Amino acid sequence: MRHLIDFGDLSRQEWDQLYARASQIIDAPEKFIDVCRGKVAANLFYEPSTRTNFSFQTAMLRLGGTVFGFADPNSSSVAKGETLKDTIKMVSSYADVIVMRTPWEGAAKAASLYSHVPVVNAGDGGHMHPTQTMADLTTMTKLLGGVDGLAIGLCGDLKNGRTVHSLIKAMAKFEHIRFFLISPRELAVPDYVRAFMLENEMKFTEVTGLEAVIPQLDVLYMTRIQRERFVDPLEYERNKGIYILTRRKLDRAKEKMLVMHPLPRVDEITVDVDDDSRAAYFQQARYGMFARMALLSDLANQPRLERTEAVEIGTKPVCSNPRCITQTQPYLPPLVKKNGGVDCCAFCDTALR
Amino acid sequence: MRHLIDFGDLSRQEWDQLYARASQIIDAPEKFIDVCRGKVAANLFYEPSTRTNFSFQTAMLRLGGTVFGFADPNSSSVAKGETLKDTIKMVSSYADVIVMRTPWEGAAKAASLYSHVPVVNAGDGGHMHPTQTMADLTTMTKLLGGVDGLAIGLCGDLKNGRTVHSLIKAMAKFEHIRFFLISPRELAVPDYVRAFMLENEMKFTEVTGLEAVIPQLDVLYMTRIQRERFVDPLEYERNKGIYILTRRKLDRAKEKMLVMHPLPRVDEITVDVDDDSRAAYFQQARYGMFARMALLSDLANQPRLERTEAVEIGTKPVCSNPRCITQTQPYLPPLVKKNGGVDCCAFCDTALR
Amino acid sequence: MRHLIDFGDLSRQEWDQLYARASQIIDAPEKFIDVCRGKVAANLFYEPSTRTNFSFQTAMLRLGGTVFGFADPNSSSVAKGETLKDTIKMVSSYADVIVMRTPWEGAAKAASLYSHVPVVNAGDGGHMHPTQTMADLTTMTKLLGGVDGLAIGLCGDLKNGRTVHSLIKAMAKFEHIRFFLISPRELAVPDYVRAFMLENEMKFTEVTGLEAVIPQLDVLYMTRIQRERFVDPLEYERNKGIYILTRRKLDRAKEKMLVMHPLPRVDEITVDVDDDSRAAYFQQARYGMFARMALLSDLANQPRLERTEAVEIGTKPVCSNPRCITQTQPYLPPLVKKNGGVDCCAFCDTALR
Repeated sequence: MRHLIDFGDLSRQEWDQLYARASQIIDAPEKFIDVCRGKVAANLFYEPSTRTNFSFQTAMLRLGGTVFGFADPNSSSVAKGETLKDTIKMVSSYADVIVMRTPWEGAAKAASLYSHVPVVNAGDGGHMHPTQTMADLTTMTKLLGGVDGLAIGLCGDLKNGRTVHSLIKAMAKFEHIRFFLISPRELAVPDYVRAFMLENEMKFTEVTGLEAVIPQLDVLYMTRIQRERFVDPLEYERNKGIYILTRRKLDRAKEKMLVMHPLPRVDEITVDVDDDSRAAYFQQARYGMFARMALLSDLANQPRLERTEAVEIGTKPVCSNPRCITQTQPYLPPLVKKNGGVDCCAFCDTALR
Repeated sequence: MRHLIDFGDLSRQEWDQLYARASQIIDAPEKFIDVCRGKVAANLFYEPSTRTNFSFQTAMLRLGGTVFGFADPNSSSVAKGETLKDTIKMVSSYADVIVMRTPWEGAAKAASLYSHVPVVNAGDGGHMHPTQTMADLTTMTKLLGGVDGLAIGLCGDLKNGRTVHSLIKAMAKFEHIRFFLISPRELAVPDYVRAFMLENEMKFTEVTGLEAVIPQLDVLYMTRIQRERFVDPLEYERNKGIYILTRRKLDRAKEKMLVMHPLPRVDEITVDVDDDSRAAYFQQARYGMFARMALLSDLANQPRLERTEAVEIGTKPVCSNPRCITQTQPYLPPLVKKNGGVDCCAFCDTALR
Repeated sequence: MRHLIDFGDLSRQEWDQLYARASQIIDAPEKFIDVCRGKVAANLFYEPSTRTNFSFQTAMLRLGGTVFGFADPNSSSVAKGETLKDTIKMVSSYADVIVMRTPWEGAAKAASLYSHVPVVNAGDGGHMHPTQTMADLTTMTKLLGGVDGLAIGLCGDLKNGRTVHSLIKAMAKFEHIRFFLISPRELAVPDYVRAFMLENEMKFTEVTGLEAVIPQLDVLYMTRIQRERFVDPLEYERNKGIYILTRRKLDRAKEKMLVMHPLPRVDEITVDVDDDSRAAYFQQARYGMFARMALLSDLANQPRLERTEAVEIGTKPVCSNPRCITQTQPYLPPLVKKNGGVDCCAFCDTALR
């Protein structure tokens, strides 16, 4: 693996190796404090995401490496009057690895074409956020001994949640997973996700209530429901209580069930749950840092390319997704790939018309 | 000591040990460049304070540790839509020590209840700023051989100066201190500070002029008088000259007297004083860094708590101070403590009605 | 050398030594990862300049040193209500070297009078940017074996380009340089630069077209032409094509010619040039980092001055340049120096009336 753009690019075996490394780090972090000594990471955050930025920064620092970059394009003159290509050419002449977060879908993929060093996607719009999925899988594996065979409840807004979609996709790499999809009907998973689960013969049950299914779960993955997502705000007021996890609802859950959440939470988990031994969401943040350490310990140590390969020069975007990086960077090559037989933009995965 | 929230929490013996460490660092900083190797500090500055932030950052870096964080909440998405508890839970899963500056009184104390790692108060509103006091005491002790028995002039706005109040409180740990409180009547020390000095049998004289007392001083601690503090701006114009230290006024001072100032200064000390051998305010900034090194070398190396103790969940603030952290964080426990027999908020020390 | 304020302060021999160090670093950077271990740099950027800031940060980090500072005065409370002198006094009590970028001409020189540690000028308004020149010379020397005897084309806006003027001045240290000055007549080099070349017996030819001279060049140094610089925007539209470098125009250039550019570029070099072996502008950015490593490895290791020498206190500026640092910092001494027999401000080099 040279870059991490999409978790789907990893084979099960590559993931198992990455987890094995993460697990070693969790057990004895002090053994890794020199693994990236002399290496420098560039954290390019084109939109603020303090949590993800802190996690990647501390991951690199705990490996003995160092970090520079920006936390917000406004606090930076990059972005202005310069193409993404030129920024990446500059940054990759200073850094050993690039971690980037952008609002533009496919931006990390685009960067990887021109970078002299590995690129990690720390979130590209609504598209991908592979290291969040790594954090989730690391938490389940470390605390439950493995992922195969788990009964996983996904609760909240399953229609708009990037985290949830990535997690479902990732689960295709594992065996005998059973999903319980817990949401209001209007916020159920999109058809293409349902199709994906059927294709991959993943078992799933869709329900509108949390309490009925909670006893069957090994993992309860909570996500936030945003009032704005509801057509009718009254509908929100009527429903939200159903999807709030309280200490009382936990009474009927398995003793070893994990409560997970990508954070930040608002009110979907009450404070009294925090001190329950099943609450794993804060530990999940810590394991996310260790998973990123495992990733960076590999990528930051890869040899730099003195010259990158020439890339075809595009003239206009082939993709119609207005949030696709190709819309603002016309020189990008017109790359197309097949997703399940369908021609898609190789940057943002949108099906081409 | 697990956290540093209030200088008053330190016993005289604990301070003496801390100073001894600071003094060793001043004499041979090169011996300490690996003391925090592999350790990471989080600097959470919810309001900008470049000087304090720089001092803590360089203190950690000179111990071989590293630093991440934010310098201003606006440059960060933390603070938004997240409780202080959740932010601290997240940050303390990434860091080995947390340094925090906030406009909310009692915030550092609140953070210490939930943090897995030590918390240092780098200023919480008008409440406490213990490491400034450490910087002041380190400067006096290093340059004058000790604090006991000193004649200390405090000059300027003694009514509103947090630094001055902290210093007076701290002096209760030392013996035979004599204070000269030099200020316009309308900016004299508040009654509770005067009461504190009487209780602790500290000698003090209140005067309105600087020149008359300057010959008796071992330390002249200057602070700024802000025009806004005066009811009548003309009164300010008439008075300010009295409280400005010039080279000429220094002529009558002891040869070894120290001129100190927390900085930044505006015009309360004229530039020609800078080159006088008694000017200690720039050295005071440097000693502040060394004092923080002594503190961090201890705290950043303390073992992380894998689980924190459950904390009682509050419902509404018991404290009426509008700047108290409990006003915005309702889940905080209703902690009460006694200050000189009076029930006070355990976060901001305001007396409860 | 204690500070680097102006490239002109370096003797040819000092530069040769600095380059020799840079060349060693380029060949084996891994040998230098501990050269600044335990040292701390302050990057004070009073105006944003991401590229320069990143270059200096990574230079220090790759030497095993660390960095703190600000990237923009707004994100900082320094600058506010404090003199430059006091800021430098504070920062130089925390840091081992100061790198500063300001909009005020002569600010780095001013800082050097009060600093306890070396100061590097990372750009002071339109005045000087010595490390950009170091990057340019390092690139030419490393890729062409030396600078003496080169035929150098300077193309674009030669009237307003600080980079170009610095480069021409620096070339006076070398022998048998031939310049081709390629620009529209209204954007030709200023008279004082022309005078400088004549004084120093430097050969130069001024032309308005790029294509005719390209075959003679060893180096083609491109710069941006800003539309705003033209009195008549139509004139700009008519001319700009002439000064855009395309793959086709390169066909007639020497096989080993270097295409250089200080970056960022806008459209003065077309994207298809990037993959030509003569394109050196991205490598130039990387060599800039190595040149800064050579500089910092020397300066950051110089002993700190416990006391700085007393400096005469000024009362009002002797210089009439509105962008001169003396305009806002009245306490600065009235220093005058001779440039080619003319009395000039020792801070911003403006001739005194």
